Amino acid sequence: MADQPVRVACVGLGRWAKTLAEAVGRSEQLKIVSCYSRSEKNREAFSHQYGCRAAKNYAELTDDPEVEGVLITTPNDAHTAPVLEAAEKGKHVYVDKPIAHTIADALKIDRGCREAGVVLAVGHSARRLKGSRKIKEIIDQGAVGKLVMAECNFSNDRSLELTPDKWRWYKDKSPGGPLIQLAVHHADTLHYLFGPVRAVTAMTKRLYTPAEIEDVTMTLLEMESGQLCYVGSNWASQGTFYTYVYGMDANLFFTVDFNFWHRSEVVDQHSRLEIQYRGSSEHKPIALGQGDMFREELEEFAQCIRSKKQPEVGGPEATAALAVVYAAIRSAETGRTVAIREVMEG
Amino acid sequence: MADQPVRVACVGLGRWAKTLAEAVGRSEQLKIVSCYSRSEKNREAFSHQYGCRAAKNYAELTDDPEVEGVLITTPNDAHTAPVLEAAEKGKHVYVDKPIAHTIADALKIDRGCREAGVVLAVGHSARRLKGSRKIKEIIDQGAVGKLVMAECNFSNDRSLELTPDKWRWYKDKSPGGPLIQLAVHHADTLHYLFGPVRAVTAMTKRLYTPAEIEDVTMTLLEMESGQLCYVGSNWASQGTFYTYVYGMDANLFFTVDFNFWHRSEVVDQHSRLEIQYRGSSEHKPIALGQGDMFREELEEFAQCIRSKKQPEVGGPEATAALAVVYAAIRSAETGRTVAIREVMEG
Repeated sequence: MADQPVRVACVGLGRWAKTLAEAVGRSEQLKIVSCYSRSEKNREAFSHQYGCRAAKNYAELTDDPEVEGVLITTPNDAHTAPVLEAAEKGKHVYVDKPIAHTIADALKIDRGCREAGVVLAVGHSARRLKGSRKIKEIIDQGAVGKLVMAECNFSNDRSLELTPDKWRWYKDKSPGGPLIQLAVHHADTLHYLFGPVRAVTAMTKRLYTPAEIEDVTMTLLEMESGQLCYVGSNWASQGTFYTYVYGMDANLFFTVDFNFWHRSEVVDQHSRLEIQYRGSSEHKPIALGQGDMFREELEEFAQCIRSKKQPEVGGPEATAALAVVYAAIRSAETGRTVAIREVMEG
Repeated sequence: MADQPVRVACVGLGRWAKTLAEAVGRSEQLKIVSCYSRSEKNREAFSHQYGCRAAKNYAELTDDPEVEGVLITTPNDAHTAPVLEAAEKGKHVYVDKPIAHTIADALKIDRGCREAGVVLAVGHSARRLKGSRKIKEIIDQGAVGKLVMAECNFSNDRSLELTPDKWRWYKDKSPGGPLIQLAVHHADTLHYLFGPVRAVTAMTKRLYTPAEIEDVTMTLLEMESGQLCYVGSNWASQGTFYTYVYGMDANLFFTVDFNFWHRSEVVDQHSRLEIQYRGSSEHKPIALGQGDMFREELEEFAQCIRSKKQPEVGGPEATAALAVVYAAIRSAETGRTVAIREVMEG
């Protein structure tokens, strides 16, 4: 049994379900056996494209004894019900980031999966980029010295094409706009690199999007360890992704060509990590190799199911990233610094 | 007379006075005729090195009929008295950035020079970097499209070597640490590129410096035009200078090798400006040529004296940059967003 691929079902069959299905296709550790979307047309097309059953309703999928885990890529505000129903039926859960659209729902999802004894893995893939992994390794080896600060950006132009039939248009479904869709990745990666966040201050603007969400956001994070971090994220300009880390002995500059973000089997080839030692002008390239962040996060999910291990990013980690988003939204609304503790208390 | 170089005197003869004297040496538009420092040893050495008189006291320098203008590079908190004394004696004034260490002193300096009818020029050189000039030109031509946001950093490790005999050690002389010494440059350049600042939110930390000032700072700026800007500045890591501008049609990435900052006759050769158009992966280099920001700001000072023009950065512009610093300090202390208006009102 341990050598058999984990049998999964895809739920919510939009663009991202296909990106994950392609990643499953590159792995021998998982196999898609079923799928479900409310749209019959979508599930038939998906079923045909990936060679799996199409469940007629969600109960049929979660009752399916062959299904061991679900890969949920429904809209942010439609995570909770399918996650909890799957967990109650003993199915393990992979859900895309953000874990949910509210802290209350994130906590419900985490508690529900824990009580049901199923694995909960959340798709914070950015920390799995080869560059993020290498930054962590270099920090841990002490090569940058004591940490001073970090700067990150994750932006693209997706809000410009939004229309009212898209859930991302709406504040109640996608609060914070690029904060909850893009900046949440850096919130997780900064937690991975620097430890937990203590407090957040932010400014947000709605400048160019036709939608009701904000499209320009900047967030400052005070880490419990004392460092300061910046996360910029807009939804109105060229795709951008970078992570800069400033240490007393060296700085690290990691940039990813966003045009390859969704193609995780090649994205690391389209990224660059450089180190600049104090006193030197040279930006020395650091070799990264080629990983596959989506395949790897799904394989970790499969391994956790087989070996009963906790995934690297489960409920608590993903809720911490969402809390940064909520603290940023509240800070931008109130014009004051907001402690993570405040948003966790509701 | 119009073809004669403007005769200037250097006041406050530390490291930066020499950097400016070297810039004067590269120009035919100015000539150093006198100098003054409280230290007899320093003024004798400077007099010898740059072939000028050494005044025995400041009154001797400001009474000198040959002196047309003064180049003041005294500590931040020692600008006001020498500026006002020079202005009262009809001497034109170039003073290094920040214009002063408090808003009240900045306003006194601006008013004093206006009432005396002398030129007041403030050394905000960063906007004169070839890359800053080119960014402005590209924005004005519309090539980046509507402006979305900007990110800047100006950092170096200077606070690590501070000792209590240095004025930069003290909060009352150098409030904000890297904010008032480094970030103030970006405050001016962002004003130049985006227009005035409406409000500021900031976080600051004292992590590694032995001095009493902060050494890690991050500031968010809400511009009156609606865009958001970020300025990071620390005094504990490798020298860094960059300005990134995000537009709807293209992004601009401008970086300067800080190791050449003080050598303005070559710094532009050690900088890089790239443009990335929306939808493209290419970072296309933009040729910058070679300027000389310190020589050029001093030559503009000389031209303003000869032609009675206003300098590009005079009292109001330099006070606006200082107001961003003060708003950032107040925001970091109070944990709330601070309007520029508040700090201008005292």
